Parts: sequence; C-alpha cells; structure tokens
Amino acid sequence: MLMHTHEARLEALRAELTRRQLGGWIVPIADEHMSEYVGAYAQRLHWLTGFAGSAGSAVVLADDAAVFVDGRYTIQVREQVDSRLFRHMSVPKDDPLRWIAATAPAGARIGYDPWLHTAGWVKNAARVLATAGMELVAVADNPLDAIWQDRPAPSPAPALPYDEALAGRSSADKRAELAEGLRARGLDAAIVSALDSVAWLLNIRGTDVDHTPVALSYVVARADGTADLFIAPEKTGAELLRHLGNAVIVRDRADFAGALTGLGGQRVLVDPSFGVAAITQALEEAGATVVAESDPTIIAKAQKNPAEQAGQRAAQARDGAAIARFLHWLATEVPGGGETELSAVARLLAFRQATGLLRDTSFDTISAAGPHAALPHYRVDEGSNLPIRPGSIYLVDSGGQYDDGTTDITRTVWVPDAAGTQPTAQQRDRFTRVLKGHIALDRQVFPAGTIGGELDVLARQYLWMDQADYAHGTGHGVGSFLAVHEGPQRIARLRGGQAGTTQELLSGMILSNEPGYYEAGAYGIRTENLLLVVPRDDEGQWLGFETLTFVPIDRTLVEPALLSPEEIAWWNSYHVRTHALLAPQLDGAALGWLDAACAPL
Amino acid sequence: MLMHTHEARLEALRAELTRRQLGGWIVPIADEHMSEYVGAYAQRLHWLTGFAGSAGSAVVLADDAAVFVDGRYTIQVREQVDSRLFRHMSVPKDDPLRWIAATAPAGARIGYDPWLHTAGWVKNAARVLATAGMELVAVADNPLDAIWQDRPAPSPAPALPYDEALAGRSSADKRAELAEGLRARGLDAAIVSALDSVAWLLNIRGTDVDHTPVALSYVVARADGTADLFIAPEKTGAELLRHLGNAVIVRDRADFAGALTGLGGQRVLVDPSFGVAAITQALEEAGATVVAESDPTIIAKAQKNPAEQAGQRAAQARDGAAIARFLHWLATEVPGGGETELSAVARLLAFRQATGLLRDTSFDTISAAGPHAALPHYRVDEGSNLPIRPGSIYLVDSGGQYDDGTTDITRTVWVPDAAGTQPTAQQRDRFTRVLKGHIALDRQVFPAGTIGGELDVLARQYLWMDQADYAHGTGHGVGSFLAVHEGPQRIARLRGGQAGTTQELLSGMILSNEPGYYEAGAYGIRTENLLLVVPRDDEGQWLGFETLTFVPIDRTLVEPALLSPEEIAWWNSYHVRTHALLAPQLDGAALGWLDAACAPL
Repeated sequence: MLMHTHEARLEALRAELTRRQLGGWIVPIADEHMSEYVGAYAQRLHWLTGFAGSAGSAVVLADDAAVFVDGRYTIQVREQVDSRLFRHMSVPKDDPLRWIAATAPAGARIGYDPWLHTAGWVKNAARVLATAGMELVAVADNPLDAIWQDRPAPSPAPALPYDEALAGRSSADKRAELAEGLRARGLDAAIVSALDSVAWLLNIRGTDVDHTPVALSYVVARADGTADLFIAPEKTGAELLRHLGNAVIVRDRADFAGALTGLGGQRVLVDPSFGVAAITQALEEAGATVVAESDPTIIAKAQKNPAEQAGQRAAQARDGAAIARFLHWLATEVPGGGETELSAVARLLAFRQATGLLRDTSFDTISAAGPHAALPHYRVDEGSNLPIRPGSIYLVDSGGQYDDGTTDITRTVWVPDAAGTQPTAQQRDRFTRVLKGHIALDRQVFPAGTIGGELDVLARQYLWMDQADYAHGTGHGVGSFLAVHEGPQRIARLRGGQAGTTQELLSGMILSNEPGYYEAGAYGIRTENLLLVVPRDDEGQWLGFETLTFVPIDRTLVEPALLSPEEIAWWNSYHVRTHALLAPQLDGAALGWLDAACAPL
Repeated sequence: MLMHTHEARLEALRAELTRRQLGGWIVPIADEHMSEYVGAYAQRLHWLTGFAGSAGSAVVLADDAAVFVDGRYTIQVREQVDSRLFRHMSVPKDDPLRWIAATAPAGARIGYDPWLHTAGWVKNAARVLATAGMELVAVADNPLDAIWQDRPAPSPAPALPYDEALAGRSSADKRAELAEGLRARGLDAAIVSALDSVAWLLNIRGTDVDHTPVALSYVVARADGTADLFIAPEKTGAELLRHLGNAVIVRDRADFAGALTGLGGQRVLVDPSFGVAAITQALEEAGATVVAESDPTIIAKAQKNPAEQAGQRAAQARDGAAIARFLHWLATEVPGGGETELSAVARLLAFRQATGLLRDTSFDTISAAGPHAALPHYRVDEGSNLPIRPGSIYLVDSGGQYDDGTTDITRTVWVPDAAGTQPTAQQRDRFTRVLKGHIALDRQVFPAGTIGGELDVLARQYLWMDQADYAHGTGHGVGSFLAVHEGPQRIARLRGGQAGTTQELLSGMILSNEPGYYEAGAYGIRTENLLLVVPRDDEGQWLGFETLTFVPIDRTLVEPALLSPEEIAWWNSYHVRTHALLAPQLDGAALGWLDAACAPL
C-alpha cells in the first residue's frame, strides 16, 4: 500500500532507521553528480516533507525532525511542510549539523548517503558530530529509498551524439588533451562525474535532467586517452556506440562503484566539488591515491571555441527574435488586461517554440509582476500567480536550450496602461543606475589575469553612490547547449570568498551581466545580457567583452539625464545592432515595434 | 684593523661560518621588529655587499655568494655590488632558498638569525632546504655581527610620552581594551613587537628609526591590563616613567628573550607577520602555547579616533601650505633653470621645516624629473641627480611627520619653459585618466563590509579602457604620527592575494589614493591624496571617504574634454576647499599663484 501522507512516510523512515540502528538520517536535495537540477528519481526531500523548492535539506531523528531552507523559501516552507512533523529552520542562522549536535543524544549514529554528499561535506560533518560525541555513518543502501514505494525510475531516454560541427572539436581530441594533462601531473586517471562534463568530453547530449541536456552517466578517463562510460544500457543505441568509437568502452552505470575498485594503486583525480564521498571512499578502500583537483574538463569547457561561439551567436539571434515578439506582445496585448505571470510564461514558451529549434528552456522562467519582481529567484505557480497589471513593472528572466547554444536573458519593462501612467522617478533612477552598471561592465577592457571578483564593483558603483545594492552576483558562466550555470568563472563580490570569484577570466568564456535592484514589496529590476570574453590586442595582454544578447531594453524606464555621452552612445549602438539582427526575423506590427524600440535615445 | 673592502668582509664571514661549521648564511634587510625602515645598526646587507636599497637579501655559501633584489634595483645593484663577489639575482624569478637548494652541497647546514625572520619564513625555508637534503640552523649569536667591528650602536635617543590630547585615549584605556580581547579569546598574554604598535599602545614616541617616530622596544601585554616594556635603560627618563605609571613595568630590552621563558604554560598571542622566529621558538621551548593571531593593536590603531582625525586635518592643512609654497617655487623659479631633483628635495624640506613643527619626513622624498618619474620607487642621490628641465613633467611624492599627524602626498606638475612648450596629448590623456580614477575612488560610497580589493578597479578603470595600467597598489594605510605605511587595510589588485586587500574598510581608517601611469624612459604620473573612511548614514551600513589632503592639482596636465560634469564638479569643489584652507596661510606671490591654481576649471 502506498503511503499518501507525509506523517506515514516519516513514521516508515523512522522504523527503517531503527531497524538499521541509526539514530538519525540526513536528507539533501542532491543526486550522484552534485547536479544543480535534480531528476524526479532523486527528489527525496520533496517526497518525505512536501517541500518543492530547489534548495534545502531535512534531518530525521528518533524523536525530532526538522527541515532547513534559506530566506528565499521562508514562506513556501510554511505552506508546504507540516510543522507538526518537521520544525521549520532557517539557514544560515540554523545549521543542520549544529542542530543535530544540539538535539540528538550523545552516542547517536547519524546516517548519510555517501552518493549524495561530497567528501568535503563528510569531513566537516564528521568533525562537527564528533565534538558532540556522535558518529557519522555512511549508508550506501539509502533507507529512504527502501520505503519509497512509488519512486520514479531514472529517465530511460537515449543519449545521443552531439554534432561535431557544433562542438567544434572531436571527443578524441578533447580526451587526448585531458590525457596529456593527466600525464603532465603524474596522474593515471580522472573521475568525470559532473553530467555536463561527461556530455562535453564525449560530445553527447541527453534529456535526463530538466533544463540541462545531459544523460545520467559517469566517465573514467585515463592518461592514455581511453575512457569508460558508465551509463544505463537502455540509453545506448547503435548511433551512440558508433559515435563513441573503440577508445570509449561503454559499461553499465550499475557497475560504476565496483569498477572503481579496479583503480587500486593508481593516482586518480576527483574534483572535490563534484565527486561524491562514495567515489572517494571506494577509491581509497581499493588502495588508489585520490588527488583532489578541479574537474579536468572545466577550463576547456568554459573557453568556447570558434564553432561554439558562432553557435552561441546564432542561438542568441534566434532567441532574441522570440523575446522581441514577446516584448511586443507585452507592449500591445497585456495593457488590455487579463494576462498573468503564468499566461506570460506560456506565451513566451510559444514564441520560443515557434522557432522550431527549441529543445528546452534553460531554467524555469522567472515571470514576475509588481512585488514579485522584488524576489530575484521568484518562481511562479498556480498559488502565487499574479495578474500583470497595466501601469506597473514586469520582469522576465528566461532562457532557451538550442542545439547551437544556451541563452539566458532578463528584461524589465514598463507595462503601459490606458491612462498613460508613467514609472515613478525612483523607478527610473534605479533602472538607470542598474543600466549604467550593466554598460560599465559591458564596456570594460581589462588586463589578462583579471579575476571576476575584481570587476564586480563596476556593475554596482552607481547604485552604491545612492546607498542601494543587489544581494546576488553580477555574472555566472553559461554552457554551450549545456548548463545555464557553468563554472568556474563568476563575477560577484569578493568578500566572503564566493566560489569562482578568484578565477581568471579567459578568452572564450561566456558570462552573464545581470545587475539588479529590488524594492521589497513593490518592484524589481534586472537587466541581463550574455557576454563573451574576447582579446583586445594581438598579444592577448588585454581582454574585453563581446555582447552576445541583442534585445531592446525598455526606454520608458530610462532617465536619460543620468547617462553620460559614452553611455548614450553605447545605448544607441546597441540598439542599431539589435535592429540589424532582429529586423530580418520580424514583420508587421512586431517589426514596427522593433523600429520604435531601437530608435536613438 | 677595520675591514674596508667587501672582499675582506666576505672572507671574514666565510671564516666565521667555517668556525661555526655552517655551510651558508642568509642575510636579509631586517630588524628584530620586522620594521619597514631598518636602523643603521641592522643594515647588515649594506655593510656586507655595498647594496644600499631598501629591499633585498644575500646568501653566502662556502664557495659561492649571491645578492637578490627585485626589478626596482636591477641597475643599482650593478653599480653597488661587485659581481665577482656576489652573483646578481633577480626576484621573483630567482629565489634565495631555491638557489641555496640548487647550489649548496647536500648535507649543508645553512644558518639564519631567528631575530631577523618570521616563524612563517622559517617553516617554509626549512621545508625547501629539507627537500634538497640540507638543514636550516637557527643561530641567535649572529656570525656577521661577530666580525662587524665598526657596527653602529642602536640609537640611545630617549623615548618620550605622547600627548594624550593628540592620542585621544589613555594608554590604560587601550591596554584595558586589549586585555578584554585577550580574556575573551582565553589568552593570557600578547607579544607586541611591532615598534609602531608598542608606541601606540603605551602612547610613547621615539627617534630610533628614520621616518617613523618609534623607540626600539617590546611589550608583553597581559590579560589583566598590565604590561612589561622592554627598552634600553638609557632611553627611559623620569618623565617617561611617570607617564607609564605603575601598571607598566619597565625592563631592560636585553632581558626580553629571557623573560619569554617566564611565560611557560601560558597561551600567548604572537602575530606571525611581526613576531620573529626567536620569540616563537623561546615561547615554545618554555612550554607556552603560541597562538598565531593578528597584532591585537592593529585594528584599534587603524581606526583613528576623533582626536587623531582632528590632528590629521591640522597636520594636512599645515603640510598642504608647505607643498603649495613648493609648487609655487616650481612654477616660478625652476623654469629659470639650474634646479635639480636634489635641490628640490632640499627646498621642499625647507618649506616643511619653516612650519616650525616638522619632526621628520615620513619617508625619503621621491623627487623625479623626466624619465625618473617613470620609476614609482625612485630615490634620488648624488649619482642619479637630474636637472629639472623646463618644459617637462616633474613628480614629487613626499610626506611629513608632525606631532598631530603623518602626511603623504604626490603631485605631478608640468614645469613651464620660456617657449611655452605644452604637455603632449598623450601626457594629458594619461594624467586625466589617472585623475578620473582618483576622483572615482574619492567619491565612491560603499556598503559596510567592503574590502579594499573590491574598490581597486575603480581607480584603474579609465586607464584600462585604453590598455594602460600601473604596477603598484592604489592605497595603503597611514598612521597618526606613526608609520606612513600602516596596516592592515590596503586598496590593491586582489589577484595574487596581496596582504591587506581582504581587510574590511572600517570607519576611521586612513588610506592613500594614488593611481599613476608610467611611460618607461619618458615620464611618470601619480596623483595622491589621503582619505578618511567615514560613515555615510546613521546606521553605519554605508561608508565613504572624506578627503584629507588639499593641495592644487596641476590643471596644465588636464584634458577637460575627458572629464564628466560630475568630475569637473569634483575638481572645482576640491579647489574651492583647497583655497579656503591654504589661502589664510599664504601671502604675496604664493597667494596669487594659489588663486590662479584654484580657479574653476
């Protein structure tokens, strides 16, 4: 009989823990690849607690239980998780490990699934629990899975070859470079466990994960250029096997853990950010030397080659026309009333689908009316869905996955009303300061060796002058028909030591440029384009950005008096290029709208 | 008989090393306090090799020897150090430890003086030498001192009380706060070995070190608020003893090492950047627990109190008038010809001395004509002295020590000639980009918690746009009648992890703002004012800068077309304030010059 209530599920988990002599169990939102987006088969926190957010964790003890979420989900957790079953805790103020240490009895054995946590997490967790006299216990046979009767099977979708003309390099070439790097560092093999790294290295794509076109699989890449691909047998058709060739041995994903034992005596690279603890533990038990270094594909994947750059430009032009059609719809149909955040999501998806080439959205569209725009990570659902009110600000942050590239763009627009209501002076001031920061970053030339954290202030400087700021980073990396959030580069505040901010920006990297401003309970602003890092001299001593995204920015929200002549020149040049790119793809009223939107400021 | 040649000195040192069974000896420029400026008694590198620069080191092996200097001193070392005695090596390309490891025979015992190196240096050095099969040996009885017959005695100058009205706080209050911090962290005592920290903590000053008004001494500060001051007995008069009171025990500096033994069993703070290895070694041998944390005075010393801020403003106004007189002299007398870098140094010193309150310069004046201005750390001497050519750029970077404050200012001026020669378009462009960066940093508002490394790019952004830069930091901390380079704060590039760049900027800190541009072999530009970090709201959530230095900036070198309206407004406002501050102190032709220099742009 299926357990339909969270109370019954919690009770069953506790019984299972008792049977295994465990005093507690930790439930993260994670898969075996430390993916940003986690498949339904791994949505254990949702099944156990009802919480449907994308970040959080739960702890179940014998006599207590708690769910831990960050400030984005404070309201959502109250609606979705029964507080009689799970205490509602707020990170970073509350911490799951410290809570266990303070709550469970001394001597308690606290279990975790080593396939769902990194080795670094395990090391820290063991230390925290040890100081409270508790033991952290790895349990590979997940007790929650034992009671999850209707657990979805992992996706059986096929993995397919990715066109080498789009990838720009053969997998053999990529593997040869990786192997050379391993040999240069005296390493025998590397575990490639991040799904987008596997996809990039072997030039394959899949549909196993929402928004990211990857297939559930692992690679063991060796210093001789050969590799083993561990993947469910039903996913590998003849076309894939032909594509992979003789140097890649295809093996059953179920055999991966056992195969690690065969690496005994070897020096094996595992990225501590992506390789789960089970991998490290299996290698160490087999007598391998685990070398904690970055995923060996990460820099090569981040530096897009000419074919990938060309693909990105084509995808952007196509996606930009769809967004332009959507903005035209917003400007002309929405003022009549009756449209909502959800209907706008559907309309935007339809415009993208009409290109005939959309594979997926690159993340859940942020369609945010009025006060919802003040929540940078807002995700609309039936319960939250607001009408898009004429005479207000509307923010849309979205992206598409196309064979030739991944897009990510945010536009904030003023939705006109019949009365001709105008944005407030404060709204225009904030929009323009965000725009000035966006332009400053877009235009900046910088010496080779510059790290993302050094450039971040350029996007904030004009907001800071008026004691305003935004509580998120300025730019993240973006993949080529891969993850919309791709490392290692990042443009964000350096204080606090955020991951990626000390990575040098290298030619060919793609970054978003997305400063914003959020007035809680009232409105929000964000203007986002993608940028490509390009050389600005022949010696590669100086770098700059090529703008990749071309879609009109809403002039209704601009206060031209705040712009310098250089900024106005940037605006006008940007819109000349936008018009040249999009006009051939539009006609009729949409083209007329584009003409007006791209006129000089 | 005195040894007059470096050859004889090197030979004597080698004999001494042989007697002590040492295969090598390391000679830094350092004293027992890790001071920036080192007294004559500790100028061992100069005595041994003839090298008179401020940074470098030498290694003497049985059959080889080398001197290691950085790029600033490549030419100077050739002129001053006999290459038949010492190989000329260039850091960071060459490294003394790696050179020893590659050159000395396996099994060699390499000696160092533990009073002249930090514990961190020792740890790294021991590791590097161990990998080459060599042993690093601490030798407190320095063999070079044993053969340095005419070694200057340390200064016998008295230490004197520092007026509490200028210090703004009593020493008892400072010691009580330090003691509270020690108790809160479960520590028993702190070793205060940085000379400026001792001076700040006890409200004393001295004249033992050039440019920095400190007395050679150590403090052991205890968690009960008492302290021992270790200082040469001849330096302590009745006035000082009265000032120090009963809670400070004055002991002979010669007894310091022995006194550390008395701290056995205690938890003792030693700053790893300032505490030399001998201190750590003595404490550990005595059974004390050495806790490596920041000098406990460092933040309190950096955050100037209202009395120190007022003193700084008064010192700046006085010093500014002296600089204005000097700039007037440059504008009117120097075009006639016959003046040199050295005569300008003398003239500037005379203007400062005419205030009647100058205690010392705060560093050796950088007086740089033409191509010398392209060397950011240029120090003029009889051998290098250039005439100041009319119709060229002249750069002067200098500072004064006054009882109420320490100053540091750089101005770059166009020296007119009879023909009315004008600066080149490139010179004006570069000067103006430096100025724009200077203004951007001066004006910037930023949230509490911002670190110096996050702001650095603001000063570089306009130079970077034209693929130009400067190879030094943008801002350093400054003391209150103390060190002109004072930690922990710093504004500089974050890449490379330079010390101080991750320190949060706190209200009351003083920083220099000194972007520059250097065209090798031709000219150099730097514009430097001091800034005070001040709150910009009532809650302390937002900070900004108060400009402290007011002296005209040379308008001849400005290209107004490159300035924004905000930048022109800053310039005009700055010169209105400069005129208001300096005009009451000037008269006659100098006042007329000031009027013209401060007219609106």
